[in-house]
Amino acid sequence: MAVRELFVTPDAASRDVQLLRTADTAEIPITLVDDRVCARLSDTQHPQGVVAVVSTSRRTLTDVLRERPNLVTVLCGVADPGNAGTVIRTSDAAGADAVVLTRGSVDPYGGKCVRATAGSLFHLPVVTGVSPAPTVTALREAGLTVFAAALDGTDLETIPGEELRRPTAWLFGSEAHGLDPATAAAADRQVRVPIHGRAESLNLAAAAAVCLYASARAQRG
Amino acid sequence: MAVRELFVTPDAASRDVQLLRTADTAEIPITLVDDRVCARLSDTQHPQGVVAVVSTSRRTLTDVLRERPNLVTVLCGVADPGNAGTVIRTSDAAGADAVVLTRGSVDPYGGKCVRATAGSLFHLPVVTGVSPAPTVTALREAGLTVFAAALDGTDLETIPGEELRRPTAWLFGSEAHGLDPATAAAADRQVRVPIHGRAESLNLAAAAAVCLYASARAQRG
Repeated sequence: MAVRELFVTPDAASRDVQLLRTADTAEIPITLVDDRVCARLSDTQHPQGVVAVVSTSRRTLTDVLRERPNLVTVLCGVADPGNAGTVIRTSDAAGADAVVLTRGSVDPYGGKCVRATAGSLFHLPVVTGVSPAPTVTALREAGLTVFAAALDGTDLETIPGEELRRPTAWLFGSEAHGLDPATAAAADRQVRVPIHGRAESLNLAAAAAVCLYASARAQRG
Repeated sequence: MAVRELFVTPDAASRDVQLLRTADTAEIPITLVDDRVCARLSDTQHPQGVVAVVSTSRRTLTDVLRERPNLVTVLCGVADPGNAGTVIRTSDAAGADAVVLTRGSVDPYGGKCVRATAGSLFHLPVVTGVSPAPTVTALREAGLTVFAAALDGTDLETIPGEELRRPTAWLFGSEAHGLDPATAAAADRQVRVPIHGRAESLNLAAAAAVCLYASARAQRG
């Protein structure tokens, strides 16, 4: 993350002196603003008193694959910013090397998604605007095993450890419609998180957490 | 779930004939309403055309413990209805036997939480209004191992399988403040989901998914 400029309310400034000191050392311009101005700069109802202007470094799928990733998350047509942001945060926590959002997914740089990532948007490369089919092809050509999270498919718990340990990309579809059948079929395997109770499914963020941590456990165990 | 009465728009009625047939067989009164009335009955911006009046059966912690549960989720002061609902849904999926919300948590029967549960609110007993300290005492006296999800603590991946296999209750605190220290200290163990990347933490729904599925895997494996 490259912070270019900071706007801070007096309250926030007195609460977080270290932030100002760090910004000052980095020669980042700081402007004190009152609560009214901060509210106009922010798109939340209860802004926390700090607004930053940041520059983003857009990365391509080719950039990401060149670095031989072990774990990649692909969101296919995920429209809900809270869900997308949470999965980016979870991907970061699970040690994923990148997150890819296909065309038709939410803009990860929108306010609600940025907040849901809790900073993770700036921790790992986030690729946007790609199409599902060439993405799956590129991932497989780069030597990644591609798993499609699905309601039907192999039970996650029964996948052999040696397969889970390989460099892996996980495809997740939208909450409402899941993955489109062609994309799911292009994966090496369709995988389901087992449902032990009476729920019909998990929500996207929960399913992604279980899948990504299964890969992390196998790859790092 | 005991449905007492249904209000349905003509659109929804023609879309889901099976629902009406089931309700009719069960002698549940059905009233056709127009979109305007449905919008007033519902608290969402885009209602799906079906509103049900249901009766809930409130259960106590004593009721739940009498049935010797293997897996129980306890939400301590979780205020966000979306988070609480998602964890109820995930608990159901992971095969948990009950969810307990301590006093100060959100009302699980509020609209936003009900929707986030995606039906799971009616699949397993949900206990509300208890205090954390006596709840932990009662869980332990009932023979459950109590794990407190925490940022510091034993790495989840290093807990011996034989310990994870025991009947278990998981305590989760609020997004903002986590568990209060006294409650966390009263657990048998404080447990953290390992963070492999640069994220500071997982969000509640993701952490709960990883923890509950770790228990399910050990108990059912």
